[in-house]
Amino acid sequence: MAKQEKTAITPTRQEDYPEWYQQVVRAADLAENSPVRGCMVIKPWGYALWENVQRVLDQMFKDTGHENAYFPLFIPMSFLEKEAEHVEGFAKECAVVTHHRLEPGPSGGLVPAPSAKLEEPLIVRPTSETIIGAMYAKWVQSYRDLPILINQWANVVRWELRTRLFLRTAEFLWQEGHTAHATAEEAQEETRRMLDVYADFAENWMAMPVIKGEKTADERFPGAVTTLSIEAMMQDRKALQAGTSHFLGRNFAKAQEIKFQNQEGREEFAWTTSWGVSTRLVGALVMSHSDDDGLVLPPRLAPKHAVILPIYRNDEERSRVLDYCNSLKRDLEQQSFGGGPVRAFLDDRDIRGGEKSWHHIKRGVPIRIEVGPRDLDGNKVVRYRRDRGPKDKEFVDRAQFIAEIGGVLDEMQQNLFQRALKLREENTRTIDNLEDFRAYFTPINENQPEIHGGFALCHFTEGDATMQKILAELKVTPRCIPLDANDEPGKCIFTGKPSQRRAVFAKAY
Amino acid sequence: MAKQEKTAITPTRQEDYPEWYQQVVRAADLAENSPVRGCMVIKPWGYALWENVQRVLDQMFKDTGHENAYFPLFIPMSFLEKEAEHVEGFAKECAVVTHHRLEPGPSGGLVPAPSAKLEEPLIVRPTSETIIGAMYAKWVQSYRDLPILINQWANVVRWELRTRLFLRTAEFLWQEGHTAHATAEEAQEETRRMLDVYADFAENWMAMPVIKGEKTADERFPGAVTTLSIEAMMQDRKALQAGTSHFLGRNFAKAQEIKFQNQEGREEFAWTTSWGVSTRLVGALVMSHSDDDGLVLPPRLAPKHAVILPIYRNDEERSRVLDYCNSLKRDLEQQSFGGGPVRAFLDDRDIRGGEKSWHHIKRGVPIRIEVGPRDLDGNKVVRYRRDRGPKDKEFVDRAQFIAEIGGVLDEMQQNLFQRALKLREENTRTIDNLEDFRAYFTPINENQPEIHGGFALCHFTEGDATMQKILAELKVTPRCIPLDANDEPGKCIFTGKPSQRRAVFAKAY
Repeated sequence: MAKQEKTAITPTRQEDYPEWYQQVVRAADLAENSPVRGCMVIKPWGYALWENVQRVLDQMFKDTGHENAYFPLFIPMSFLEKEAEHVEGFAKECAVVTHHRLEPGPSGGLVPAPSAKLEEPLIVRPTSETIIGAMYAKWVQSYRDLPILINQWANVVRWELRTRLFLRTAEFLWQEGHTAHATAEEAQEETRRMLDVYADFAENWMAMPVIKGEKTADERFPGAVTTLSIEAMMQDRKALQAGTSHFLGRNFAKAQEIKFQNQEGREEFAWTTSWGVSTRLVGALVMSHSDDDGLVLPPRLAPKHAVILPIYRNDEERSRVLDYCNSLKRDLEQQSFGGGPVRAFLDDRDIRGGEKSWHHIKRGVPIRIEVGPRDLDGNKVVRYRRDRGPKDKEFVDRAQFIAEIGGVLDEMQQNLFQRALKLREENTRTIDNLEDFRAYFTPINENQPEIHGGFALCHFTEGDATMQKILAELKVTPRCIPLDANDEPGKCIFTGKPSQRRAVFAKAY
Repeated sequence: MAKQEKTAITPTRQEDYPEWYQQVVRAADLAENSPVRGCMVIKPWGYALWENVQRVLDQMFKDTGHENAYFPLFIPMSFLEKEAEHVEGFAKECAVVTHHRLEPGPSGGLVPAPSAKLEEPLIVRPTSETIIGAMYAKWVQSYRDLPILINQWANVVRWELRTRLFLRTAEFLWQEGHTAHATAEEAQEETRRMLDVYADFAENWMAMPVIKGEKTADERFPGAVTTLSIEAMMQDRKALQAGTSHFLGRNFAKAQEIKFQNQEGREEFAWTTSWGVSTRLVGALVMSHSDDDGLVLPPRLAPKHAVILPIYRNDEERSRVLDYCNSLKRDLEQQSFGGGPVRAFLDDRDIRGGEKSWHHIKRGVPIRIEVGPRDLDGNKVVRYRRDRGPKDKEFVDRAQFIAEIGGVLDEMQQNLFQRALKLREENTRTIDNLEDFRAYFTPINENQPEIHGGFALCHFTEGDATMQKILAELKVTPRCIPLDANDEPGKCIFTGKPSQRRAVFAKAY
C-alpha cells in the first residue's frame, strides 16, 4: 500500500506492529484492560467471536466422543506439590487464596480477617491436571471405567507480569481436555487426534495455516512426556503457539494414584493426556488477517456476516429504503453459510455514513451493503468486501447478491487462508549454517521495523547449552519438530553434531 | 406408593428428604463433592443438563436484546467497599487472594512468597456489580451510550460453611445480567422483563411453577432498591428462590460514577439493574420432579430423550437386534421436539438388563425402549415412561412409536408441570391468625418427617421486630409479595397493624 494513503489504524503494521495490534483490538471493540492488573474485559464483539470459537470446537470435541464437565476453581496447595515438574512450572505465577473473610481493619478500611486464615492456601487453577486427576483416581477402578474423555470450559489464572490483550493475560478463558486410558497407545492416539482437531479448526475455521509438530524437551508442558502443538505465523513473521496436546504418560497418574485393575486382574497406573486452546486464539486470528484499516474476520467465525447500511436524505426516502433493507435482511437470513443461516444486520443509527462504514470496516464485518433510493429503483445493492480495499465497490443485482452470498463468503474465507499461507511460505527458509541463522533473525538496524525473520528449518541438538545460549541471545526458540517431516540426516547448525530431523525456529509470542 | 415396595433410592422422600436429595444426585451421577471444601464437581450428566439450561436462557437473553461479555474474576478490595450495603452483604464470605507466587518454605513444602504479597488484596467475585460498574463508568458518556444490556456467564465464589450439591456451594456457575439505563422507568421495565424471562423458563422448560414477587426489605439484594424473585415449592413443601432480578436505582451508579449527559446536556447518574440464575436451578429441578426411584427430568431439558435397550441371548440375535435398534435411533433423530431433533441413544453395554434399566431410571431418561428378537418379528417396541411406574410397560407399533414420540414427550412435560402445580396448590393456605400460622409451620413431633407446612399467604408488617422474632423461631421467612395479588386490606397477623397486601411465607432453601 502506498505510504501516503490514510489508514484507519495508526500506526500501520510496518510502522509499529505491536502498537498496531493494540489499536486494532481497540478499534474493533474486542476487549480492553480492566482495573485489575493483567485481567482483561472481553467486550461483546470480542466475546461473540469467542462464542463462535467455542460452539465449533465444542461440537468437534463431542464428535470425537468427549463430554463436558466442571471441576473446582481452586486447587489445594498440596495437590500442586505432587508432580515435581508441574509445581516448578506453575508455583511461580499463581494467585494464592489465603483468607475467606474480610473485616474492618485498624485504620477503617477492610483487611483479610486474621481469624479466617485458611489452614492450607488454595491456588486459583492455572490448569487442572491435579484437581481433575484427584477425581479420576476416585472414578477409575477397573479397565471398564476407561477411557475417561472429559473436557472443561473454564477460566484460569497465571500471574503474568507483562500482559497483552488476548495474547497474554493473567486470567484467560480456555478449554482443557483431560483423558485417562488403559494403554499408552490409546493415550498417544488421543493426543494426536486432538492436535488434528485443533489444526482442522485453525485452518478451516480461522483460515490460519498451522504447522503440527512436537515440542523439544525444554518447551514441553511441565510434567508431560511429549507435547504436540500447532504453530502459526503472524504478519510480523513471529510464531504463535495456537494449541497444545500433551501425552502425560503415567506421570500424573502416579502422582495422583489413578489406578485400575486390568483385564488380567493386575493393578496398573492409567495413561493420561491433556489438551487446550484459549482466548489467545482471538489474538492469533487478529494478527493473522487484520490490515491497516482494522480487523479482518474469517467469515466462518464472524459474529455477523453482512451489515446493511441504509442511505437516505429525508423521511420519505427513509421509509422506502428501510423497508427494502429489512426485506433484504430477511432474504439474506434465508441463505446458509458455514452450516448455519447467514448472519445479517441493519445499522440504522443516525450518524454520518462515512463514520458508520468505517465503524464496520474496523470491526471486520466481512460484507457491507449500501442501499440508497436509486439502488431501490434499479433493484441493486452496492457491495463492499472486507478482503478488498475499503472503496472497492461493486454494483450487484439484488437477486444475484442474495443468491451468491454464501459463495462470496466462502471465497473470502479461502482468500484469507491463501494469503496467510503465502506469507508463511515466503518467509520460511531452510537454513544450514549458523551465520545465515544469525543474519535471518537479526534486525538490520535499530530503526528497522519489528517485522523481519520468519520460520527457519534447521538441524539442531536437543538440550544443548551452546545452542540455548545463541537462541536466548537472538530471542529465538525452537517452535516444534514438524510431524510430517521426513527423516533427513544432517548436522546441527549450532554444534555440528549429527541430527536426524529439523525443527522450526522462530521468534514467538 | 405402598411402603413395602422396594425403591431405587434409599431413604425415600418420606423417610429423610435431605438425604433422599443427596442420594438422587449421586445415583443420577449429576455431581459430587470435591476435595476442595464447599466446591463441587459437576459430572457429565449434570453438566449436560446445565448446558441445556444455558442454551435456552442464552437465546432468551439475546431475544430480549442482550449481548454476552466477560469481566475479570478478581475484584480489588477497594471496589467492594464503595457501596456500603453491598460490602456488608459480601465481605463476610469471600475468597481473598493475597499473594501471587509460592516458594519453598522453611519446612520443605510451599508457602505463599512473602515478597509476592499484593499491595491490595483481590476478592474472587461473589457477584460483579462493582467491577462491571467500573467499566460502565468508562463506557457511558452520553445518553446515546445507553442502554447497556450485557450478560455474563461465569463462576462466582461465596464462602459458605454449610454446603449442599447445587443448592449451596462455595463456587457456583451462573449468569449475571448487568444493565444501565437513562431513566428509572426503563430500568424498572428491564427488571420486570428479566423476571418474566426467568418465570417463562422455569415454567415452560423446567416444568416448575413459580410465584413472581417482590422481596421484603430484609430479603433484598445488598444495595438494591427492589429485588424481584421467582419462588418455587419443592416436594418437601419448602420454598426455593430460583432467580432474582434487581432494580438497583442509582446506588451503584453513584458508588461507581456511572454518569451521562442527558438530551438537555445536563449530567445525570444512570439507573442500573442486575439479574441472575445459577446452577442452583439444577437442584430445584431435581427436587421438583424426582421420585423414590431417582431423577425425573423434564423432557425439554433432558440431555437425552430416549434410551434404546437391546435384548438378545446370542450373537445371531445380537446382530439382528442391534441393526434394528440403530435404525430405530436414526428414525427417532428425524423427529423433532422442543425446537430440535429428538435426542436418542443406544445402550449396548455388556451388563445385566435389570442393572441397565435401573441405571437409566435413576438418571431420569424420559423414555426407555426395550427391543428383543420377538419385538423385531412383530415390528414392535416396549416403551417405558419415566413419569409412570418403573414396570409400567406398553407394547407399541414401531411406526406409531416413532410418529408419536414428540407428542409423548410433550405430554410428559405437561404432566410434570401439572403435578408440581397441584402439590403447590394443595399446600398453599391463606392464614389470618398467628395460632394457625404457628401450627402450620410446627412439625407435629420430632419423629415427624421433614415434610410439612407449605406456603402461607398472610398479612404482615414490613421490618417489624416482633414478626422477625417469631419467624426466626419457626425458621420461616417471607418469600415474596406476589406481583399478581390484588390490594386487599387486612391486619398483620403478627402485630395487628393494618396491611394492604399479603406475602408468601415459607421455610426455604
